[in-house]
Amino acid sequence: MSNEMTALEEITEEGLGIGGGIGAKIETPVIVLNEKAYAESKGEKGFELAEICEEVADETGANIAICPQQAELALIASVVNIPCFAQHVDAVEPGSHTGFTTLESVKDAGAAGSLVNHSEHRLKIADIEYIIKKAASLDLLTIVCTNNIAVSRAVAELKPYAIAVEPPELIGTGQAVSKVDPGIVENTVKEVKEVDAESIVLCGAGVTNGEDVRAAIALGADGVLLASGVVKAVDPKAVLLDLVSGLR
Amino acid sequence: MSNEMTALEEITEEGLGIGGGIGAKIETPVIVLNEKAYAESKGEKGFELAEICEEVADETGANIAICPQQAELALIASVVNIPCFAQHVDAVEPGSHTGFTTLESVKDAGAAGSLVNHSEHRLKIADIEYIIKKAASLDLLTIVCTNNIAVSRAVAELKPYAIAVEPPELIGTGQAVSKVDPGIVENTVKEVKEVDAESIVLCGAGVTNGEDVRAAIALGADGVLLASGVVKAVDPKAVLLDLVSGLR
Amino acid sequence: MSNEMTALEEITEEGLGIGGGIGAKIETPVIVLNEKAYAESKGEKGFELAEICEEVADETGANIAICPQQAELALIASVVNIPCFAQHVDAVEPGSHTGFTTLESVKDAGAAGSLVNHSEHRLKIADIEYIIKKAASLDLLTIVCTNNIAVSRAVAELKPYAIAVEPPELIGTGQAVSKVDPGIVENTVKEVKEVDAESIVLCGAGVTNGEDVRAAIALGADGVLLASGVVKAVDPKAVLLDLVSGLR
Amino acid sequence: MSNEMTALEEITEEGLGIGGGIGAKIETPVIVLNEKAYAESKGEKGFELAEICEEVADETGANIAICPQQAELALIASVVNIPCFAQHVDAVEPGSHTGFTTLESVKDAGAAGSLVNHSEHRLKIADIEYIIKKAASLDLLTIVCTNNIAVSRAVAELKPYAIAVEPPELIGTGQAVSKVDPGIVENTVKEVKEVDAESIVLCGAGVTNGEDVRAAIALGADGVLLASGVVKAVDPKAVLLDLVSGLR
Repeated sequence: MSNEMTALEEITEEGLGIGGGIGAKIETPVIVLNEKAYAESKGEKGFELAEICEEVADETGANIAICPQQAELALIASVVNIPCFAQHVDAVEPGSHTGFTTLESVKDAGAAGSLVNHSEHRLKIADIEYIIKKAASLDLLTIVCTNNIAVSRAVAELKPYAIAVEPPELIGTGQAVSKVDPGIVENTVKEVKEVDAESIVLCGAGVTNGEDVRAAIALGADGVLLASGVVKAVDPKAVLLDLVSGLR
Repeated sequence: MSNEMTALEEITEEGLGIGGGIGAKIETPVIVLNEKAYAESKGEKGFELAEICEEVADETGANIAICPQQAELALIASVVNIPCFAQHVDAVEPGSHTGFTTLESVKDAGAAGSLVNHSEHRLKIADIEYIIKKAASLDLLTIVCTNNIAVSRAVAELKPYAIAVEPPELIGTGQAVSKVDPGIVENTVKEVKEVDAESIVLCGAGVTNGEDVRAAIALGADGVLLASGVVKAVDPKAVLLDLVSGLR
Repeated sequence: MSNEMTALEEITEEGLGIGGGIGAKIETPVIVLNEKAYAESKGEKGFELAEICEEVADETGANIAICPQQAELALIASVVNIPCFAQHVDAVEPGSHTGFTTLESVKDAGAAGSLVNHSEHRLKIADIEYIIKKAASLDLLTIVCTNNIAVSRAVAELKPYAIAVEPPELIGTGQAVSKVDPGIVENTVKEVKEVDAESIVLCGAGVTNGEDVRAAIALGADGVLLASGVVKAVDPKAVLLDLVSGLR
Repeated sequence: MSNEMTALEEITEEGLGIGGGIGAKIETPVIVLNEKAYAESKGEKGFELAEICEEVADETGANIAICPQQAELALIASVVNIPCFAQHVDAVEPGSHTGFTTLESVKDAGAAGSLVNHSEHRLKIADIEYIIKKAASLDLLTIVCTNNIAVSRAVAELKPYAIAVEPPELIGTGQAVSKVDPGIVENTVKEVKEVDAESIVLCGAGVTNGEDVRAAIALGADGVLLASGVVKAVDPKAVLLDLVSGLR
């Protein structure tokens, strides 16, 4: 190993504590970064990404939360002071469930909560309800992903902490929220808040730059959920700084 | 926080490095501890358990490997010098797979490999084959669980690193491998090695003490896979020391 | 084969036509019989059961619908004149989906609709929404099962034809709806209708005789969904006649 | 309804009996038609397809088996005299399994067996083993699909009635078995028979005409498994007659 310290070593020099992220409630408007299972967000790269997010949050005062790769959750949550979320959690009680992730272990890992029902990891409705209720009892936050207005209303009945909507008009088409019919995001936010006025609503598609973030916020969203735009960027910090500029 | 250091702090004082476990091939005979999703193996307790396993391995020279809770894999693997295994891994390439665990992330986490197809987390046969082949190409070890002789022979055709057999006569009945018909374990080992002479065979049921370990080894097993007997013990170190005594 | 005709032969003497059940909308109050995968409801026994249900419906004027075993759906729907429902349908379009059941095939089979999200066959929320919407476009009816008030409200947002609620207080405990706190069923019905006034609500637990049916109807339910009480009865016709007596 | 009889009415005029297909063991070489969930194979069209297959089998003496849509299995099996297979079966005992298909109901439906582990419906290895063993005890035939040589050998250890291999070189590429390197099919057959000499091997990819069938048989296959080539053909009978010509 060379003389240069790795990102992890630099961070851990400052001390490491399980649960550093616990209780670090996210405030809005917020940018939530889903690191998925990308090659660009695991191991050493995952640390660099976490460090960059922490830096940008510190430097700009913006609210940034990250969802590290599942096997690295406790490690990343131990070394950064921004809120960390699990990417997924299973609807099981602690016990004989080899390879499953309980809300209790997510909490002990120092995470602030979990993504739930991501489009790449859909859940049964009974399990979503179980997770939302159980998480609330553990002071963990749930960000539940939904695919259209009908499902968003249904999930709102379950009273999660936040709903991340992916309006179908913004997915796949590569359309930006700042360019399309403003009614799309506006209606989704309105419908969700009609069912649960306290629900936070994140815009989960069509966001790649600060202009999109500004447009989403202007249309009523409390923040954005994004992934590859930052994780796969040549210069993630520059992209993140641009995104953050849209929060103000 | 009090003056007493937590288990994690004590360990990390000695330095922390991702991938501490990489390359730490397991040697046989071996005791593999599946920590499952028990309340007794998460967070601070998970560290204490890892530390105990490391101590016993250091003190006795026995080969002990552990499977920490999934979200704590990278953290635990960073702080102990015994081989760590994921409890489960998904049959996907790095990419857009929110909440899934790739073999690449398991490797970057510093793990030596993964349990596969545990009875609480059964996999499709095509996925087992994918995982075994991909793991081998990444120098990761696979311990595939099986439920009877027929399935054990089938899995042996896929050439995993190890097969952990749970002879049906030993599960649920609470029977100990040291008390039942010796033919049960003997035949399973024989059948697996007939298909793949190089496969390591672990006895995955009926083991709670050193006498059972000794019996399993005598009947041809290369080690044992166990869980609650240690994790839920009042004195895990004492139980582990007893188990280890059966290796000699 | 002996001289005595089987139940199927007797029925088919009167003519067989695919789609006999199509358009046979269920009217309320209704008794829906889920035949599950019981040994007592397959093959020849399934026909006898269907015949009995048809007889009782004809003789008493009661609304009775049945959910035959999945592989027998088209056959049973061809020979009885009471509404038949699939026990499950998959959220896929017609195409390359080996072994999956489309709504289109359920319709062509002559069924009136499908059970959705039964407690033994839970579905992802996005799939429930897809099935409800697609079924409506095909004039098929959806009876969506739910496990508590929160999930019932969520499903009501998706506007299915009917919701079959299984109040947790009535499951497992063996409690009868006619004996417990009337508030349990009353509240569930009220909450569902608050979200979707047009939704039909079936009581899906705690019903084994006419008295229970009467109690469920009195508390606001539009009918009942039951299974083993009829299917496994020594004299299914007698049980069914008793149940029907509770509808009036 | 017009004066012209539908395909179903024509067939059923000749009498209908559950279980017509029971005991109708398939003989080799055989053509197995997987009707999937295509729009072109459901309802009335499913009957016409079944009738065409029966006609071609009767006229040419060829062995043809069909896998009707799941909800139509019992109905189709009641009206044709060629072997019918379920497209999928669940690894459960008769009982409280709403919407699942048991081997017992497949048998009562008059089917000769079931496809297992189709690439569109992969199963857990423990479930494949359960289904193969249970089916054999019920005199039902299992045709297990596999995706490469390693998985084929693994499945062969479980001793199914037949293995339908889809050599990766023949899938997706649109390559015909009659045009590619003969070693591909030859090796697969050889490897499977090495593990289980009695296993029937079907070629499950790269077959669209009689020449391909002839090539597959010449390379050691006992038959072919195909789908869209027949089901979606403008003239299914002509395609089938061409395919059958390759059997001789």
